[in-house]
Amino acid sequence: MISSISANFNLSEAVEKDKQLINEYLEKYLEIKFPNTIWESMRYTTLSAGKRIRAVLALESARACGGKLENVLPTACALEMLHAQSLIHDDLPCMDDDDYRRGVLSNHKVYGEATAVLAGDALLAYAPQVIIKHTPDSIDRNILLQVLDEFLHAAGPMGIVGGQIVDIQSENKKIDFETFNYILNNKTGELFKFALRAGVLLSNASKEKLDALTSYGQKIGYAFQIADDILDVVGSLQELGKTPGKDNESGKNTYVSVYGLEKAVQDLDKIILSAQNDLIDGNIESLLLKSIASYIVEKVR
Amino acid sequence: MISSISANFNLSEAVEKDKQLINEYLEKYLEIKFPNTIWESMRYTTLSAGKRIRAVLALESARACGGKLENVLPTACALEMLHAQSLIHDDLPCMDDDDYRRGVLSNHKVYGEATAVLAGDALLAYAPQVIIKHTPDSIDRNILLQVLDEFLHAAGPMGIVGGQIVDIQSENKKIDFETFNYILNNKTGELFKFALRAGVLLSNASKEKLDALTSYGQKIGYAFQIADDILDVVGSLQELGKTPGKDNESGKNTYVSVYGLEKAVQDLDKIILSAQNDLIDGNIESLLLKSIASYIVEKVR
Repeated sequence: MISSISANFNLSEAVEKDKQLINEYLEKYLEIKFPNTIWESMRYTTLSAGKRIRAVLALESARACGGKLENVLPTACALEMLHAQSLIHDDLPCMDDDDYRRGVLSNHKVYGEATAVLAGDALLAYAPQVIIKHTPDSIDRNILLQVLDEFLHAAGPMGIVGGQIVDIQSENKKIDFETFNYILNNKTGELFKFALRAGVLLSNASKEKLDALTSYGQKIGYAFQIADDILDVVGSLQELGKTPGKDNESGKNTYVSVYGLEKAVQDLDKIILSAQNDLIDGNIESLLLKSIASYIVEKVR
Repeated sequence: MISSISANFNLSEAVEKDKQLINEYLEKYLEIKFPNTIWESMRYTTLSAGKRIRAVLALESARACGGKLENVLPTACALEMLHAQSLIHDDLPCMDDDDYRRGVLSNHKVYGEATAVLAGDALLAYAPQVIIKHTPDSIDRNILLQVLDEFLHAAGPMGIVGGQIVDIQSENKKIDFETFNYILNNKTGELFKFALRAGVLLSNASKEKLDALTSYGQKIGYAFQIADDILDVVGSLQELGKTPGKDNESGKNTYVSVYGLEKAVQDLDKIILSAQNDLIDGNIESLLLKSIASYIVEKVR
């Protein structure tokens, strides 16, 4: 059974507080410079009303490990920039061809395709620069290099890009579970896993905590995507912030199309329970991490 | 007057030797992994018959500073990957819409637009990872971080992407010299400058050498682009490896369209002379660097 949440803990309040902090830093890092158009386009998608879940997880991971938020804030913001980059390029006409994102017009519908391609490139190059430039000098240089390496890994051909290419190649095809698993892991799992790991690494915490939060992160990423796939079937434009039923129409493989709705809901329960057990195994006391897990299940009920 | 080249020095032989070394390492770093398509697409443009001039300059800069080639080889290869990334995205239908590159079909004509967008993204994320993973441990971690920071700077909104967006916005418009200068500097100058700086930084050489080769690099980048613009007017498909007259047809601003052919040739001479003087100022004895400068002038005569 999914652990119930402490009555004294208000998840949305806690998340909202972190979101504000992240938005404040994103605003600072993405200050408009010359040439204005590219920065405006980078800001448009990054600063639009996202859930900031990856960044919040990175902050809370550090907090749960006794680390300082200032050590992980640049990386948390870089994660949001990378996420925005993948959304901008995914929405392009030659990719998923989606006109709406986060409830507003997608980047290329506002700035044109050429600028959208370049804004994605710009975010991909600038995000790791934010990590280098703004992570405090007190962080060990080898740890910083490891964080950068893992960040780039999650962004590239062994991460998001790898997942995206297999996803595209699998459209309108019946795929095996292994392939579907690869897509899910690479498109979503890697970035969530990295968010949690970054918090641990930048807090100089134990290997026990690193292992536990690595496992928790990957599962939460899975769960998040499964919940999204379930919502795509049962949700509305308002809840999704993108066109509902779109994945189904375009022949995309989703957890629901591969495993069916009933199994999707059951598996989501199991994964969340397992993620919550990771927290216990790692002696990680975080109401936020525990509650986010429960929240993902609850929102599809 | 442009310095004449020593009769005993064979530029193309020296460059060819470095090119082979770079290609060998690129081949190693870009070994095909799963998912194969993305690695094949990354390899297609990166390994096609490029001049490798940026990588050669990085190696020679290290050599001229008494550094070890193994220290700079990963960065030299990353430079070529970044260059390939910018070519792949530049050739897309929504950007310059070019069907040919380096004498063969451009990336999206072979792999399709979606894969071409992703291959560019993959190269942009993977290139700095190559620098982190393969630069020898003996290199000071702060130097390595500086090299990474400068690499990402050259790739992003304050480098290539910045130049590209202003270039696109200036198409079919009469632009002032300052704007044209910005495009030239960002699209080409930054990457050449970085190539030279990386060689110096990774060889732990003096500030005198860093300043001299920074200035030389920027000028050589300018010169290289001016020569390319001159060739676009007077060259053939075979020499260019891309469609000649293309820049002119598409309303692109080039050095020739902005300043006229005569001034372009004169300025090229001046810039090359000034770049060769930088070598003297920095006490840099490199026949290759001196000769590359002369070669750029000679090829448009």
